[in-house]
Amino acid sequence: MNDFADRSISALPLPDADDVPEGVRKLWAKSQEAFGFVPNVFVAQAYNGDQFQAWWNYFNLLVNKAGHLTNAERELIGVVVSGLNRCTYCAVSHGAALRFYTEDPVTSDLVGINWRQANLPERESALAAYAEKLTVAPAEVTPSDLEPLRAVGLDDHEILEAIQVIGMFNMSNRVSTAMAMVPNAEYHSQGRGA
Amino acid sequence: MNDFADRSISALPLPDADDVPEGVRKLWAKSQEAFGFVPNVFVAQAYNGDQFQAWWNYFNLLVNKAGHLTNAERELIGVVVSGLNRCTYCAVSHGAALRFYTEDPVTSDLVGINWRQANLPERESALAAYAEKLTVAPAEVTPSDLEPLRAVGLDDHEILEAIQVIGMFNMSNRVSTAMAMVPNAEYHSQGRGA
Amino acid sequence: MNDFADRSISALPLPDADDVPEGVRKLWAKSQEAFGFVPNVFVAQAYNGDQFQAWWNYFNLLVNKAGHLTNAERELIGVVVSGLNRCTYCAVSHGAALRFYTEDPVTSDLVGINWRQANLPERESALAAYAEKLTVAPAEVTPSDLEPLRAVGLDDHEILEAIQVIGMFNMSNRVSTAMAMVPNAEYHSQGRGA
Amino acid sequence: MNDFADRSISALPLPDADDVPEGVRKLWAKSQEAFGFVPNVFVAQAYNGDQFQAWWNYFNLLVNKAGHLTNAERELIGVVVSGLNRCTYCAVSHGAALRFYTEDPVTSDLVGINWRQANLPERESALAAYAEKLTVAPAEVTPSDLEPLRAVGLDDHEILEAIQVIGMFNMSNRVSTAMAMVPNAEYHSQGRGA
Amino acid sequence: MNDFADRSISALPLPDADDVPEGVRKLWAKSQEAFGFVPNVFVAQAYNGDQFQAWWNYFNLLVNKAGHLTNAERELIGVVVSGLNRCTYCAVSHGAALRFYTEDPVTSDLVGINWRQANLPERESALAAYAEKLTVAPAEVTPSDLEPLRAVGLDDHEILEAIQVIGMFNMSNRVSTAMAMVPNAEYHSQGRGA
Amino acid sequence: MNDFADRSISALPLPDADDVPEGVRKLWAKSQEAFGFVPNVFVAQAYNGDQFQAWWNYFNLLVNKAGHLTNAERELIGVVVSGLNRCTYCAVSHGAALRFYTEDPVTSDLVGINWRQANLPERESALAAYAEKLTVAPAEVTPSDLEPLRAVGLDDHEILEAIQVIGMFNMSNRVSTAMAMVPNAEYHSQGRGA
Repeated sequence: MNDFADRSISALPLPDADDVPEGVRKLWAKSQEAFGFVPNVFVAQAYNGDQFQAWWNYFNLLVNKAGHLTNAERELIGVVVSGLNRCTYCAVSHGAALRFYTEDPVTSDLVGINWRQANLPERESALAAYAEKLTVAPAEVTPSDLEPLRAVGLDDHEILEAIQVIGMFNMSNRVSTAMAMVPNAEYHSQGRGA
Repeated sequence: MNDFADRSISALPLPDADDVPEGVRKLWAKSQEAFGFVPNVFVAQAYNGDQFQAWWNYFNLLVNKAGHLTNAERELIGVVVSGLNRCTYCAVSHGAALRFYTEDPVTSDLVGINWRQANLPERESALAAYAEKLTVAPAEVTPSDLEPLRAVGLDDHEILEAIQVIGMFNMSNRVSTAMAMVPNAEYHSQGRGA
Repeated sequence: MNDFADRSISALPLPDADDVPEGVRKLWAKSQEAFGFVPNVFVAQAYNGDQFQAWWNYFNLLVNKAGHLTNAERELIGVVVSGLNRCTYCAVSHGAALRFYTEDPVTSDLVGINWRQANLPERESALAAYAEKLTVAPAEVTPSDLEPLRAVGLDDHEILEAIQVIGMFNMSNRVSTAMAMVPNAEYHSQGRGA
Repeated sequence: MNDFADRSISALPLPDADDVPEGVRKLWAKSQEAFGFVPNVFVAQAYNGDQFQAWWNYFNLLVNKAGHLTNAERELIGVVVSGLNRCTYCAVSHGAALRFYTEDPVTSDLVGINWRQANLPERESALAAYAEKLTVAPAEVTPSDLEPLRAVGLDDHEILEAIQVIGMFNMSNRVSTAMAMVPNAEYHSQGRGA
Repeated sequence: MNDFADRSISALPLPDADDVPEGVRKLWAKSQEAFGFVPNVFVAQAYNGDQFQAWWNYFNLLVNKAGHLTNAERELIGVVVSGLNRCTYCAVSHGAALRFYTEDPVTSDLVGINWRQANLPERESALAAYAEKLTVAPAEVTPSDLEPLRAVGLDDHEILEAIQVIGMFNMSNRVSTAMAMVPNAEYHSQGRGA
Repeated sequence: MNDFADRSISALPLPDADDVPEGVRKLWAKSQEAFGFVPNVFVAQAYNGDQFQAWWNYFNLLVNKAGHLTNAERELIGVVVSGLNRCTYCAVSHGAALRFYTEDPVTSDLVGINWRQANLPERESALAAYAEKLTVAPAEVTPSDLEPLRAVGLDDHEILEAIQVIGMFNMSNRVSTAMAMVPNAEYHSQGRGA
């Protein structure tokens, strides 16, 4: 059975629960229990089930689990990149995640529009500036662009993780946009304060 | 021990063999045996070893293994996207892969420069055109851009795979460029004919 | 007296209440009473007091008062243009206004990121598409670009008003950005529903 | 009665004299007397009469009357911005105004094409450089871009006026282009010397 | 002897008359006699004398002598391309040439700013549109872009000449800009009518 | 007689041998003897025979004969510019020429994709950087951009030659693309080593 077939959240067909790998069905159940809803990305992209699982294993390790950068730093990158690529699914859902990790109901909106106008601390500014350049002008990036990251204290493992998170959102923004994915309505109001 | 430490193939440190997960060491050995060299990406990105493995599991499934599209079609997308993002590592290495799968020593070069001037069949042209738009102007992409893909016969599973391959190269181009990765010299001459 | 001098809401000095024209002081008082706060634009731009008043008279007539388009339509244009120009002050404050007029807590966020992904009705889509072209590529606009507006039923007075609202936000986005104006925190949460 | 109805100077209908506010009729008469012709903008935009008057009150105060910057400085900004936005109406008419205020038949043409090649004094160069950045890349502007203006001696009132003039021409260029307004032929030859 | 050494018309040294080939000296004398001045391009570029002569032989044949297109059509292309590349030397000098060949003091200015707003006949519009695309987006040009030229009656020899003239101005604009060449003052007022 | 009529190497007709000037026939014969083939540019562009000859005289003097820069330096510029303009004919054929002059089978490919990633010596880097700016942003070039060229030792004659070579490839890229010229297959494998 598939609760999603009546919702227009993708330009491609949604998979039936019978057609997805067992692991995907578990992910759906776990999300429903944890959040009260299943993020639309888990349904829409699961149309090619095995590829979705391989992507999710990578994304989840890179962006969500304990890593070199904090979760807030990785979500900041996600919001900057998603805003630049103008991807509604990712900008809205990771905007909510950034509000969650920072417990700040204002900065996430500003970063999604223009990090230069968000009064960020210098470490966050350096990450945002690098994320912007690597997103909009990858051909002009050279190792000298890493210097401002080192100047604010990032080590090489943190830098490599930042690079991959920037890369990842440049992938997922394009996939979400191409599929015309719609963000779950819940994301818009999460973390906006009392 | 690590044979790579003396080669300048990355802006970040290269990992020692002792520092990478067992699976990475096996991948290095297998590559050496199969190709006579270890692709530099397997060394450079393995500096964050677990994240590298998760990426490679996904990339290998999506781009190399049996999928919905042919290997040549997926490499064609890779060359188009890598040329647009002007990433030397990916354009040179996947240019070689495209020559391998097509057994054509000429078209791969043309596609890497400008697919419009490569006299591609209509299915390949449709894939290349879509890859270009989703790469350079993701914010302008809508479901109507999928119509030309359907018109040349792609089904929804093939379309979703194409979208993810386009996304993947938009990720890996940025990672390779940011790390200043250098393509192995072997790629330049592979598949250029007698 | 001036309550604003301690707040960093502009890259230029803030005016003392004594230095602004009487009409500006009345506007401040009226805003405080109506909204519970004075929009930062009323303070920051009033540094050149007479020019501010002339601007406000025009802006208020064009955007806020009864006109040819509905208030929601004019705010929709404002959010589209401000998102494209990546102006935090205008995107956040007019995003709140659009939520107010539409009583819709979701669409405003989507429009500010990418109107193509906001599932707009055809009249709103036509306005948004025209606003985007006139904002990002004014040199390529010709009278033929008005045809889609006429096709969804806009008459010539509505078209002229839409054009001027698009122009106005291209002005105010640049002024707000240049001055590094900061949106009042209240705007972020207004109209987000129960 | 309306002398303009037979001239193709706008993509929208021209107003009858009976349909415009009294103040507009007076402006037409005054222009005819002063210049020997009525600038087409006074006719075309008056189709929405009250909004035109509010705009003109603001524009006239900001650009023409005594302000913080000289008239030549404000027209220089107007020509730079109008050239970048490729608006014929504004570039030609304000090109004539710049020749008038500078009594220089050559520099105005150069500035309209490329201020970098016009051999401007440093104050004018700083204004032109700032006008270009705020026009073509508003999202990248920060308060640090004001430093070169301060370095050539502009005070905060002059800076705010410059910002608003830049904003104004980004508005009026879009309005004139959208309406397909045609510059009065008289502007082309004004101020070109003996 | 060399009359030019005291004039700042190039970022590079000006040649002495003794240092240029005999043909260049004759060209200078002939220009002085015909126009009352020597176009600055003849002096500045002659610093590498033989290369200048080879360029001039080609330019003069392609742009000035009897060809497949009229002189006015070739100058129209030159003005469109030079305006897009924002080259003052070429835009001003060929703007004068276009006024000369068309005996029209108005259209040349409009074309230099934005041909879309110059009310051009369809043949001239097709040439201008093609010149714009080949100038600003050469990578996107395909043979299908030639169809509008054929539709307004251009034959293959005319089309090839148009292509080469577009190419030529893309060359000469870059050379003139790189050298910071200054247009002779005479060009500004030529052909502006009684 | 004309051996080329059966090959699709141009969007325009190919000339018959009888229709081209005597000098063109000699050039064809000389090429056939020297290279074993006639470069397609010599056939396709000769459709307007006299203009082709004037162009070739200039191109051959500027790019091929003894000049101020080495042949490798001029071909480097050609490959950089042709890669940026995404012209297959010029990028492939001059890529081969650069391999020939440098006797390096790797660097030419890298330069064609992204000179920043080709590990060039400082003189070649300075030339490549200047070629990129003058190609993609001519309106922003000023004499200050010549300083890095002087800093690596270029004299004024070398600088002028570099400028003209950059200009020339901006011309020939557009002509080759517009005509849809196809590179001779021989170029792809030339100079790739044992």
